[in-house]
Amino acid sequence: MIIAKTITETRKIIAHAHTTGKSIGLVPTMGALHDGHLSLIRACRTQCDYTVVSIFVNPTQFGPNEDCDRYPRTFDADSAACEKLNVDLIFAPDTNEMYPQQNLTWIIPEKLGDHLCGASRPGFFRGVCTVVSKLFHIIQPDVAYFGRKDAQQLAVIRHMVADLNFPVEIRPIDTVREPDGLAMSSRNAYLTPEQRIQASCLYQALTLARDLITAGQKNPDTIIQALKKRIENQPDTKIDYISIVDNDLMHPVSTIDAPVTIALAVHLGPARLIDNIMVDPNSQKP
Amino acid sequence: MIIAKTITETRKIIAHAHTTGKSIGLVPTMGALHDGHLSLIRACRTQCDYTVVSIFVNPTQFGPNEDCDRYPRTFDADSAACEKLNVDLIFAPDTNEMYPQQNLTWIIPEKLGDHLCGASRPGFFRGVCTVVSKLFHIIQPDVAYFGRKDAQQLAVIRHMVADLNFPVEIRPIDTVREPDGLAMSSRNAYLTPEQRIQASCLYQALTLARDLITAGQKNPDTIIQALKKRIENQPDTKIDYISIVDNDLMHPVSTIDAPVTIALAVHLGPARLIDNIMVDPNSQKP
Repeated sequence: MIIAKTITETRKIIAHAHTTGKSIGLVPTMGALHDGHLSLIRACRTQCDYTVVSIFVNPTQFGPNEDCDRYPRTFDADSAACEKLNVDLIFAPDTNEMYPQQNLTWIIPEKLGDHLCGASRPGFFRGVCTVVSKLFHIIQPDVAYFGRKDAQQLAVIRHMVADLNFPVEIRPIDTVREPDGLAMSSRNAYLTPEQRIQASCLYQALTLARDLITAGQKNPDTIIQALKKRIENQPDTKIDYISIVDNDLMHPVSTIDAPVTIALAVHLGPARLIDNIMVDPNSQKP
Repeated sequence: MIIAKTITETRKIIAHAHTTGKSIGLVPTMGALHDGHLSLIRACRTQCDYTVVSIFVNPTQFGPNEDCDRYPRTFDADSAACEKLNVDLIFAPDTNEMYPQQNLTWIIPEKLGDHLCGASRPGFFRGVCTVVSKLFHIIQPDVAYFGRKDAQQLAVIRHMVADLNFPVEIRPIDTVREPDGLAMSSRNAYLTPEQRIQASCLYQALTLARDLITAGQKNPDTIIQALKKRIENQPDTKIDYISIVDNDLMHPVSTIDAPVTIALAVHLGPARLIDNIMVDPNSQKP
């Protein structure tokens, strides 16, 4: 396994892999790898000839009062986990390598990035699109893997790739969960043991939504109120949003008669956690 | 010479050229080819193994009251000119091929695209960056050629390529001029014979600026006033802007002690014409 810290070195290695006709897969991460990331890497290893994992905590997707500085950085453990999975290349640039000068060119996902997480984190998807575009241009992967846990990010990236004709195929990978249902996230590390127990209410709320839809409930507001109650039952939670949206533009639906995503973001102590599930009201009948 | 109208076909042809190890050059145009374009194509032919000319009048870079609909379309003549210069591939998509759905992802050049032409044409550079990015992803050129006549566009594209790590080298080509100095432009076709004569005042003004700087004039305002007078001497002119800017971010300078670009845009009857020259105050002494 090679660890490359510079763009020049990475381009050279990738160019060689390309000339040998290998298909290249990219798993973009901010490190602090957990089982969710590892399932992306495993999919990549199975489906591509050459697996690249990028590890970069991207400052341009964090707001001024967010957790960029305290975001967990565990490079040695990450690198060992990648080695164990036979990753071919880790691209781990520092901030100066990725942003050597003031960045003036930004990629903006209109109408896709201004609600849900985009509403509470202005500039977040601008930063995500811009850094993912940079990574795509540096690595030039044939396939890139994104987790379904970040459902809006996945929608934004899919539209970016289509709108800008990136020669990259986006493959989404299902959310990996703890035994109690909590979605794997690097930010779970922020939780105290007590908060960790409370955190299972997010997935419980999502399964409640699925049950209600399966039972025939078509009114999103009724469902959202039920979920709100379930989550607010836990003393340390503060709801950012709960929303029932279509699967393409992720905009709120007024009635549930087609597949939807139930998406939520909840502050729990120092952590802001997100989760979602997709539900098809027509195929989930028991 | 191949003429491809679809992205799928173009990707296939380009992939083949890539596997044979050919260097690929792209000359992006909106058609209505003139000698300026042809000099870009000639440079590409000399410097690259495989020359692609794209011809696409990009609607997203035109404002609602601009000349998108009446922009000259001369495909047969363009195609004949390309054939004569041994172009390998013309990529000539229609609007539906380039924008099959509502475009939601845009590339925005902050601080670079909001003055000069960006001020009088809001959204222009957003459209340019977005379509150039699409063309780069479709053609995947090693080198792309842009004319110096569109100086701000060149600066915006260069910053976009650097900021987003596009694996493309941008090569600027000098402006080609008519015998009386008028810069070649597809929009010169809008001029009446009388306006065409008046149009030479743009280049006369630029050379006047060069002479003043060479003679030691360091005050941009003094120079701009002199240019204004020269241009307003022609009855059908209406100045959009005259500006003396640095060569990187194209922002106005307060004194001329390093290389600058004198850039102007002038309405002349139905045409809005732009032109510019670069002047180095330290090397132009007679």
